[in-house]
Amino acid sequence: MTDLTRPTIRLRPKTDSRPLRRGAPWVFANEAVTDRRTKAMVPGTIAVLEDADREPIALVGVNPNSKIIARVLDADPNAEIDEAWFAARLTRALKMRERLFDAPFYRLVHAEADGLPGVIIDRFGDTLVIQPNSAWADTLIEPLAAAAAKVTGASCVIKNATGRARALEGLDEETTVMTGAVDGPIPVPMNGATYMADLLGGQKTGLFFDQRPNHAFAARLADGARVLDVFSHVGGFSLASLAGGASHATAVDGSAAALELAEQGAQAMGAADRFATRKGDAFKTLEALAEEGETFDVVICDPPAFAPNKQSLDAGLRAYERIARLAAPLVRPEGYLALCSCSHAADLTKFRTACNRGIGRAGRSAQLIHTGFAGPDHPLMPQLAESGYLKALFYRLLP
Amino acid sequence: MTDLTRPTIRLRPKTDSRPLRRGAPWVFANEAVTDRRTKAMVPGTIAVLEDADREPIALVGVNPNSKIIARVLDADPNAEIDEAWFAARLTRALKMRERLFDAPFYRLVHAEADGLPGVIIDRFGDTLVIQPNSAWADTLIEPLAAAAAKVTGASCVIKNATGRARALEGLDEETTVMTGAVDGPIPVPMNGATYMADLLGGQKTGLFFDQRPNHAFAARLADGARVLDVFSHVGGFSLASLAGGASHATAVDGSAAALELAEQGAQAMGAADRFATRKGDAFKTLEALAEEGETFDVVICDPPAFAPNKQSLDAGLRAYERIARLAAPLVRPEGYLALCSCSHAADLTKFRTACNRGIGRAGRSAQLIHTGFAGPDHPLMPQLAESGYLKALFYRLLP
Repeated sequence: MTDLTRPTIRLRPKTDSRPLRRGAPWVFANEAVTDRRTKAMVPGTIAVLEDADREPIALVGVNPNSKIIARVLDADPNAEIDEAWFAARLTRALKMRERLFDAPFYRLVHAEADGLPGVIIDRFGDTLVIQPNSAWADTLIEPLAAAAAKVTGASCVIKNATGRARALEGLDEETTVMTGAVDGPIPVPMNGATYMADLLGGQKTGLFFDQRPNHAFAARLADGARVLDVFSHVGGFSLASLAGGASHATAVDGSAAALELAEQGAQAMGAADRFATRKGDAFKTLEALAEEGETFDVVICDPPAFAPNKQSLDAGLRAYERIARLAAPLVRPEGYLALCSCSHAADLTKFRTACNRGIGRAGRSAQLIHTGFAGPDHPLMPQLAESGYLKALFYRLLP
Repeated sequence: MTDLTRPTIRLRPKTDSRPLRRGAPWVFANEAVTDRRTKAMVPGTIAVLEDADREPIALVGVNPNSKIIARVLDADPNAEIDEAWFAARLTRALKMRERLFDAPFYRLVHAEADGLPGVIIDRFGDTLVIQPNSAWADTLIEPLAAAAAKVTGASCVIKNATGRARALEGLDEETTVMTGAVDGPIPVPMNGATYMADLLGGQKTGLFFDQRPNHAFAARLADGARVLDVFSHVGGFSLASLAGGASHATAVDGSAAALELAEQGAQAMGAADRFATRKGDAFKTLEALAEEGETFDVVICDPPAFAPNKQSLDAGLRAYERIARLAAPLVRPEGYLALCSCSHAADLTKFRTACNRGIGRAGRSAQLIHTGFAGPDHPLMPQLAESGYLKALFYRLLP
């Protein structure tokens, strides 16, 4: 029995409803009947999704302003999306993170794969940063935040609304402290390092948890090594390398604020004497270091997404190749080069080919010793696993 | 200057020599001039590879009986392939393993990517197991073994000649102790577990080092868990799970000898009371466990290669799907399912699709939390990275 008082949204006659019944999370605008009634729906409306024969399929959050017009919230069309519903999803998400991580610093909710479409929640101990990057979650931020605080026991909840995804949903940009207070950057323990996360002023939610396993792999290479961390943000790879025993690490970034947080992290670790920062454009800095005759045992490049979408793919791959070509000469014989991509459009094979070519153009031969992805606190829906955006390739460069 | 006394092998006029000059490792039989002189070469002959214009390209090992008629040994056509040459390659390989591993138990040489085409060397402390799976290495096994013993300080060297690859090269099958003595199975510490490796009677070189990082990930899921390890061999995933705190682990395998070694490992760990074995066909055992109403918190299936080549791909993918479909019902709600493939022909996307389908057919929805490959002691040549054979997918199954 469907609740007849609920709004409905219907698939077009030719749209196959089977993927949705099997767990596909999205309805695209061209798959739904977009009559005047649907177009007039307030973004964030909770509605019953029906097939062309008016058979209910699932409960969805509707946004007529988005290419993804509906996101599946529950296979049960009669589900109530209230604080208890959020608490159940959050408890399920929390259980996995508590099994996998020693300390409460992780991505608690990774959107669709955690059953909360468009919702990102990062946890920094007693503080939660929620990104409600879809209209339904933006509308229901209050019960979502209340449930998150209750399930985790967090005393501070921040709503961060700066993500690019929100613009696609037609949502505003504002960051507010909903509960509690934030008193400066928060120290985050990860892989033996200490990172300083600025939860109000930083990029994304203040720290990138996704690179954790790749930071850990870099740390295994770092003992006694001179390390260069390009596009360092708050020192992701460089501070992990210092924790792994690096004799020295240099962080390069264009943001003075990020480098200042990296410095504070190194100080908190008692490793400031082995740490240096260098503010500047990454490409120019790589060229300058080569001119200065500098070499390193380990070089890591973790750039922003050069190929965030299909249109930017070719230019993005050329940029990845160029990074590899400029970084390889800085690596000593038998040293290591890690190259990362967080580009959705550049799949693993394309990204690796670009990196291989750049290394080859630098005249170096190589062994590929490790391929890493985002950590397990960034789960994927199995049918969307191709969308795994983060790739990290670890090469050993021969003479 | 080329040594004129050396035999030569020449590329056909239309064969592009650029990939070989850039580091490609192989010449296929249809790319070389196979005149009577070439066909008469003794398998294992060291020769100078020339392009169609008789310009030297590299030094190669020739085997006229193999589809890979020549394997590049050195970019320098004048290199001497003697004990010192082997020692240099082995030292380079050893340096990386010593950086990455705390104890001397690892794959020391992984063939082409370590500069020794067709050569596999696994290290078990003071004992080395060499698989000379190409004719040139089979011919030069004496200086290779001498260099390996010298570089590592190993007191025992075994030549293992049972690999499938040797048949393709037309090589015989025999396993001999070249130096020192082997006195029963060797205890191998890995991920906190103890494995018993039978270096003379076991499969491959006695233990699969390639799964080390995936064993480690399974161990992170295991605390307090009931674990099922299907196709367990000597207990790879089950003993790692016990080391990770599993309340109980059951190993299923068709080989009584492998299960006996797994039992010995559990005893060596003091975990025999939390360990059981079950000999039998994996498919039938999965069905029987379902009939018995058994469930587990963690189920791992690590079958042999169901799709070792293109001809077996379709049947292999169906077998992977069937494994997933039979294993999923044994996983408790919010429990974990790990599915592995060591099939060259089934790439990551195809294997994942088969697994997703099997889980779906079992009526379960899932999160994909981790994708793992072989460990860094199994490096790849970057241009052949698609050939990374080992894949491990870790799913969390929802109700």
